[in-house]
Amino acid sequence: MEDSNRSWYFVERPVGQPDPDCFELRDAPVPTPADGELLVRVAYLSVDPYMRGRMRDSESYAEPWDVGDVLQGGIVGEVVESNDDRYDAGDYVTGQGTWSEYSVLDADDVAPVDPTIADLPAYLGVLGMPGRTAYFGLLEVGDPKPGDTVVVSGAAGAVGSVVGQIAKLNGCTVVGFAGSDEKTRWLTEELGFDAAIDYKATDDYGTALDEAAPEGVDVYFDNVGGPITDAVFPKLNLDARVAVCGQIAHYNDEDVPTGPRKLPQLIAPRATVQGLLVADYATRFEEATDRLATWVANGDIDHRESVVEGLENAPDAFLGLFSGENIGKQVVRVSEEP
Amino acid sequence: MEDSNRSWYFVERPVGQPDPDCFELRDAPVPTPADGELLVRVAYLSVDPYMRGRMRDSESYAEPWDVGDVLQGGIVGEVVESNDDRYDAGDYVTGQGTWSEYSVLDADDVAPVDPTIADLPAYLGVLGMPGRTAYFGLLEVGDPKPGDTVVVSGAAGAVGSVVGQIAKLNGCTVVGFAGSDEKTRWLTEELGFDAAIDYKATDDYGTALDEAAPEGVDVYFDNVGGPITDAVFPKLNLDARVAVCGQIAHYNDEDVPTGPRKLPQLIAPRATVQGLLVADYATRFEEATDRLATWVANGDIDHRESVVEGLENAPDAFLGLFSGENIGKQVVRVSEEP
Repeated sequence: MEDSNRSWYFVERPVGQPDPDCFELRDAPVPTPADGELLVRVAYLSVDPYMRGRMRDSESYAEPWDVGDVLQGGIVGEVVESNDDRYDAGDYVTGQGTWSEYSVLDADDVAPVDPTIADLPAYLGVLGMPGRTAYFGLLEVGDPKPGDTVVVSGAAGAVGSVVGQIAKLNGCTVVGFAGSDEKTRWLTEELGFDAAIDYKATDDYGTALDEAAPEGVDVYFDNVGGPITDAVFPKLNLDARVAVCGQIAHYNDEDVPTGPRKLPQLIAPRATVQGLLVADYATRFEEATDRLATWVANGDIDHRESVVEGLENAPDAFLGLFSGENIGKQVVRVSEEP
Repeated sequence: MEDSNRSWYFVERPVGQPDPDCFELRDAPVPTPADGELLVRVAYLSVDPYMRGRMRDSESYAEPWDVGDVLQGGIVGEVVESNDDRYDAGDYVTGQGTWSEYSVLDADDVAPVDPTIADLPAYLGVLGMPGRTAYFGLLEVGDPKPGDTVVVSGAAGAVGSVVGQIAKLNGCTVVGFAGSDEKTRWLTEELGFDAAIDYKATDDYGTALDEAAPEGVDVYFDNVGGPITDAVFPKLNLDARVAVCGQIAHYNDEDVPTGPRKLPQLIAPRATVQGLLVADYATRFEEATDRLATWVANGDIDHRESVVEGLENAPDAFLGLFSGENIGKQVVRVSEEP
């Protein structure tokens, strides 16, 4: 085994939009797993919008990173040394690791990966945290009924693309907002969305929604916030449900962002708006992953990963999330697959 | 019987804050009740913030008034002529009538009034629509648990004052926002609120809330919107519930009001925000009125009505709602009680 392990460290808290100066690549010896731990050679690591919150010096749902910490995130990779009976060297696992070539994980906290069901990156997307977020967020918070109109923002992202497809499986009309012609075509031509609105090529989201969702909106799954959300709220139908999963349009704001007030718009439709964190459904993760794996195996759910090559480009992959570079799940390939 | 019946007509749609020019007092013959109808001599009529919405030329939860319509609203009064077996002349009833000396109501749509349980005006407040709104809004949407901290805006109003008292009966810590020293003293000294914040005498609502609700906010019952609501949202605890009952701070806005965005603040606490209309609980009105009447009879719930004397002053009573003139329920005395 090599005795060099490059890792990305968090070295500067961003103000507003993060930039490459927030990150530093350092080398260190490959760590040694203790009893019950696994040393994993990272094949892919996940970069996710919620990580922007960990860069803030304030408590939130995810523990803040301290300056000087190694960056953490979901990984999938190969066990190269196991100090736990449940795993052998050569097994593939996924769990919370670090932005590194090698990462030590507690065997209690990893899940096995079967590369014959889906490619490794899918375990960071549709079969990972984003897929489970879509599953519970849509089904538990959105509570879609057949015939409902479901609108999804960030629809071509890791979560949104799965939300829309689960909504279709539930008999809904599905409209997605996404940020390029390539993305909207993917949604409508490949994923079965009924309509998709290219928000970067559309001036008047309200009129676009009137055309795409003439019956109004029963479920809004919001990954984005900002002007898209502002356009959706006035279209909420009676008893509409809004799942607030992400607000990426505001993650880089330093001050509390302002915009049209939403509460007055909730009374007439008696709409319900709920914040959503997938961790609340931890006891049901296996259910979600099993169903998602079945849907993927059946071809009922399609998935796509945007792969940035090389650990050295991990910060760029993360920063690209805020300009919508990714289609589907954004991952970083850290080492060659077998 | 007199053959003169003065009524207020809606003669001009307001732009922004309504003014007396929106209203005109006209005289007409006393109407004749048809089969199944009652002619009622109005004792008290109700003016309510939601009526501002009926002055807009747009569909909402309450049917808009047309220019030229007689103004409608809750009334309590004495049956002077009955064409329905269930009621006799001399009975007291409450229901939806008009801003008039005499009003014809369908006997199917009225409820009997027992002046020995409570004074007539209470049937427009704690034993009427506002009381039922408080009851269902707090218990069904707010879902208070013993030990929860419940914050109420518009706490000295017809709805808020009942919300806070029901919350106390449910073992909660209750904090109210109200707009005068007299109001806050009523809340804490008479109604049992744990704390009350005079928002007209306080600059920093956030700091005031930190003192009054040091454990954070589990339930927020919002009648007001605006800066009070802006201060409450950052204090929401995990799984907090927000009942959006009214937004009187915004009812006179002509454009969509702007302010701090709330959706990003919902994710970390996984809070739920729901619009509320009492009409959705129509099948359970009797349950609510019975329980409220019991609480009033027991002295568990106190109530107060602000009475403006004379039908001719009804528009002033309505306009005064927007500057917080009322303590408790605002009513207009139209005729002498028996």
